[in-house]
Amino acid sequence: MTVALELAERLLQGDVRALARACRIADDRLPGHRELASRLHAQGRAGWVLGVTGSPGVGKSTLCDALVTRFRQRGERVGVVAVDPSSPFHGGALLGDRIRLQRHFEDPEVFIRSLATRGAVGGLSRSAADVIRLVRAWGARVTLVETVGVGQDEIEVSRSAHTTLVVLAPGLGDGVQALKAGLLETADLFAVNKADREGAERTAADLEVALELSARPQRPPVLRTSATQHQGLDELFVALDEHRAWLGTPEGDERTASREREAIQSFLREELGERLVLALGQTLPAAAERVRLGELDPYAAAEELWLTR
Amino acid sequence: MTVALELAERLLQGDVRALARACRIADDRLPGHRELASRLHAQGRAGWVLGVTGSPGVGKSTLCDALVTRFRQRGERVGVVAVDPSSPFHGGALLGDRIRLQRHFEDPEVFIRSLATRGAVGGLSRSAADVIRLVRAWGARVTLVETVGVGQDEIEVSRSAHTTLVVLAPGLGDGVQALKAGLLETADLFAVNKADREGAERTAADLEVALELSARPQRPPVLRTSATQHQGLDELFVALDEHRAWLGTPEGDERTASREREAIQSFLREELGERLVLALGQTLPAAAERVRLGELDPYAAAEELWLTR
Repeated sequence: MTVALELAERLLQGDVRALARACRIADDRLPGHRELASRLHAQGRAGWVLGVTGSPGVGKSTLCDALVTRFRQRGERVGVVAVDPSSPFHGGALLGDRIRLQRHFEDPEVFIRSLATRGAVGGLSRSAADVIRLVRAWGARVTLVETVGVGQDEIEVSRSAHTTLVVLAPGLGDGVQALKAGLLETADLFAVNKADREGAERTAADLEVALELSARPQRPPVLRTSATQHQGLDELFVALDEHRAWLGTPEGDERTASREREAIQSFLREELGERLVLALGQTLPAAAERVRLGELDPYAAAEELWLTR
Repeated sequence: MTVALELAERLLQGDVRALARACRIADDRLPGHRELASRLHAQGRAGWVLGVTGSPGVGKSTLCDALVTRFRQRGERVGVVAVDPSSPFHGGALLGDRIRLQRHFEDPEVFIRSLATRGAVGGLSRSAADVIRLVRAWGARVTLVETVGVGQDEIEVSRSAHTTLVVLAPGLGDGVQALKAGLLETADLFAVNKADREGAERTAADLEVALELSARPQRPPVLRTSATQHQGLDELFVALDEHRAWLGTPEGDERTASREREAIQSFLREELGERLVLALGQTLPAAAERVRLGELDPYAAAEELWLTR
């Protein structure tokens, strides 16, 4: 048995250290990562994936911390995948793991993993998908995916969730206006966090208006929470459970299936694109240079490369 | 002569209505858009491209408005390409054109175009590149590209500029921490706008620290401006001119060339990827469905598709 397959077996038995190692292998695309992905593919479809997204500073981490506690009280095994914009200023993902969710670090039934954005468009959602698959194969009943809802990449990540919770807070200068159109349309629930602060009702009202203006047939619930004050968490938890139950209906099941189809197709497109670039080798940069020098126009270059592939 | 080629000739003669029509053709990928791009490719490399980016609310539009006025005072023809996150709440690109830069609308030497984000990763930077090429071919001496510096897509757009100005403002809750790593490293100049407000010095100081911590050999200038109070604009204008002059040096020229190389290669990769998907037709979704049902693992599916391409 190869090292990767042995690791996969240990992971499937719920070994958390095997999971941590598998995540590093997937993250850095180390040897064996494809073998791992192949072996765990069918097993990486269990459990519920909850996406939690919102601008920096809305209190996502505190809210996630409270949610993890609730899930654990019910005895559910929990995975947390935190997607960090890698700002060098606050240490990004490196520090992130240590600061957030501290009190769950000792709990062997909670696995926490931070992913940093890498620069390349699309790379993040792919790494996140790999890690989410591993966490699910490990046996997480709930996989919580925390993203910063500002970029397209993060929206892609949140689309890979079964349920998406968008967190807002009053007094952030941008508020509802900063919500990307995609999030307003794909979110399943909204939480206006820091509800004890000034402006919270205004933020909630703005959001209700925006949702009314949007073309959604059914308006998603808008909850008021204060994670630090432990307010509104029961209601949020009930609303999350309701959505989780809906996923089991034919309608919910069809939505999950259609998102999976989309995600797999997008993975295949990327993978094939990479193979094509690899197959072209130096022909691609050579053609690009001729385009740059004005000897060839870009579409003619694409045609030429396509024919010589 | 085809309609597209006729349009290209009129555009090259400086006809602003031809430019507006060409932008619509490029934006919606209407028939003739490739012909247009091919014809105008070599001409679309003139002039200076200035990227202006920053979070929502920092006052980018007011600053851009002041810059356009300055360029026009020198008699330079100006294009403005504004990249909007398409929030349905404030009307996104549709309303944007009308609100921003109102007083330049009557000036035939200023062309303003808003682009909305479309959802797909990468699509935005491609549309923006098309429009920027058209504006330069029309004869803009300065093409100002205004983006909201929150997503990866917007960073890609700002990388296509010769000079990138990042605008910050005090009191936005996120401040320097929200600056993506990419922007901290690629920006050529920083402006702390709303410098008359409380907290401006703190924001500037935070930024200086972040720049010191970053691995940049030379620290870019950090300017204080207040676009509404007309403060610091002379200094900003001088700093921009200095960078524009630097672009003419061998070092500056090499940087522009290397960015062009990167942009063309990324265009070619995307274009070839699209052709591949088109060539695969229904084979791709069929393979994706088998992956979803667990009959095939994703990497095996990619291999199979690659061999049958």
